[in-house]
Amino acid sequence: MSAPARWVRFAHPQGREGFGTLDGGVVTVFDGDMFAGCEPTGETLALDTVALLVPCTPTKVVALWNNLRAAAQKQGLAAPKEPLYFIKPPSCLLADGGAVVRPASYAGRILFEGELGVVIGTTCVDVDEADVDDVVFGYTCVNDVTALDLIAADPSFAQWTRAKSFDTFGVVGPAIATGLDPDALVVTTSAGGRVRQEYPVSDMFFPPRRLVSLLSRDMTLVAGDVVACGTSLGAMPMRPGVPIEVTVEPVGTLTSTLA
Amino acid sequence: MSAPARWVRFAHPQGREGFGTLDGGVVTVFDGDMFAGCEPTGETLALDTVALLVPCTPTKVVALWNNLRAAAQKQGLAAPKEPLYFIKPPSCLLADGGAVVRPASYAGRILFEGELGVVIGTTCVDVDEADVDDVVFGYTCVNDVTALDLIAADPSFAQWTRAKSFDTFGVVGPAIATGLDPDALVVTTSAGGRVRQEYPVSDMFFPPRRLVSLLSRDMTLVAGDVVACGTSLGAMPMRPGVPIEVTVEPVGTLTSTLA
Repeated sequence: MSAPARWVRFAHPQGREGFGTLDGGVVTVFDGDMFAGCEPTGETLALDTVALLVPCTPTKVVALWNNLRAAAQKQGLAAPKEPLYFIKPPSCLLADGGAVVRPASYAGRILFEGELGVVIGTTCVDVDEADVDDVVFGYTCVNDVTALDLIAADPSFAQWTRAKSFDTFGVVGPAIATGLDPDALVVTTSAGGRVRQEYPVSDMFFPPRRLVSLLSRDMTLVAGDVVACGTSLGAMPMRPGVPIEVTVEPVGTLTSTLA
Repeated sequence: MSAPARWVRFAHPQGREGFGTLDGGVVTVFDGDMFAGCEPTGETLALDTVALLVPCTPTKVVALWNNLRAAAQKQGLAAPKEPLYFIKPPSCLLADGGAVVRPASYAGRILFEGELGVVIGTTCVDVDEADVDDVVFGYTCVNDVTALDLIAADPSFAQWTRAKSFDTFGVVGPAIATGLDPDALVVTTSAGGRVRQEYPVSDMFFPPRRLVSLLSRDMTLVAGDVVACGTSLGAMPMRPGVPIEVTVEPVGTLTSTLA
């Protein structure tokens, strides 16, 4: 497990990109590879002078369905025998503070789903659960935005991928917190300041370390990839202009708003 | 539409990677960006002295379900109103000549599915069908390998993504052919030398140009991304050691074998 810190990626106003650690509104800039080894450059920047980017550059976001007991119970779903998932592509990623854009082709409900994200730090395959902390860099917040009415629009084929993959439908950030015990975390989601989701990671059928181990038996997990651990009760339609805030302490709060 | 050529990516025996055009067993090496502009270096290499790589480096493979009329008719499926698809991640890619590896967790049938692949050349969104040739670099062959018995293993959630995303389950290549009219192409798949699939692209519900246009309304298509256009009748289980050959002329033949 890495030492506790909050890592961010950012763009300078001039467009140059960088990364570093965030503490008390100050970014300490690093040089090198966030996952493979890096050193502070000596430069610090005020957070309000940079634009945060998605804190990693995943080759894929593996996103879970039906992984929270409370939601399964309410929806009458059986406990899954194995992780059930879809993939969100890199093209759907949106950084903290961004605008979720409704696709022109879709007039239905657009849900927020507040989730814990696991950020892989070491490209890996077939990882034992006991060794997962060696391949995880840290944890982040995810809003797994969903075009709900698309999923069952075609009776022959559930459109999980399409409903979850529109540009801006993968909100990730604001930071990656390292040095955590994921099983002790709580995910809180509020809409317009009103709490709508609040659930402990301990309610997951497949807790984060188990999940990473099982997924790594299905496919290579690449440094920077994100596992979105699934959501619980309280996911609701986003309304234009009403900010959705997903909070996992000590990651921080991830904000996104339907345009 | 680009001038007719067959583009490949390769690794030298020493490990250095490169790309170029392939003609009559000779690779003419290029330098620059395959999609954005490149020049011949003057170097040529005999094809049998290099190892072919997947000819592009997609950020995603968007893969179609139920896109061929003949297969839909046989399976009693209605014509889809919109493209129905899942995403295969970059981690599943396998180059021409590679070995498809059965996941340790899965003992069921592993199908070959011979398909036409469209390779995006220009990052794009909201492309009109009439303009698609401007954003397509060329066409390739795909074996969309599928762990068939996983798809319906959980009654509550069809596992399209997992069944299609194991490492080595996305075979793409051997080349990208440019300057083609995709609607005139034929996809042929043989197993151990015996033809099992042979279908015209003209039988697609959503032909390639239409497909790219529609998908570009759902999500940004990135240079190098692949659209696998779906398969037709005759997809069958792969048997260990029996080579599967997907042929689209003038792309060539893509070979993969279950280990």
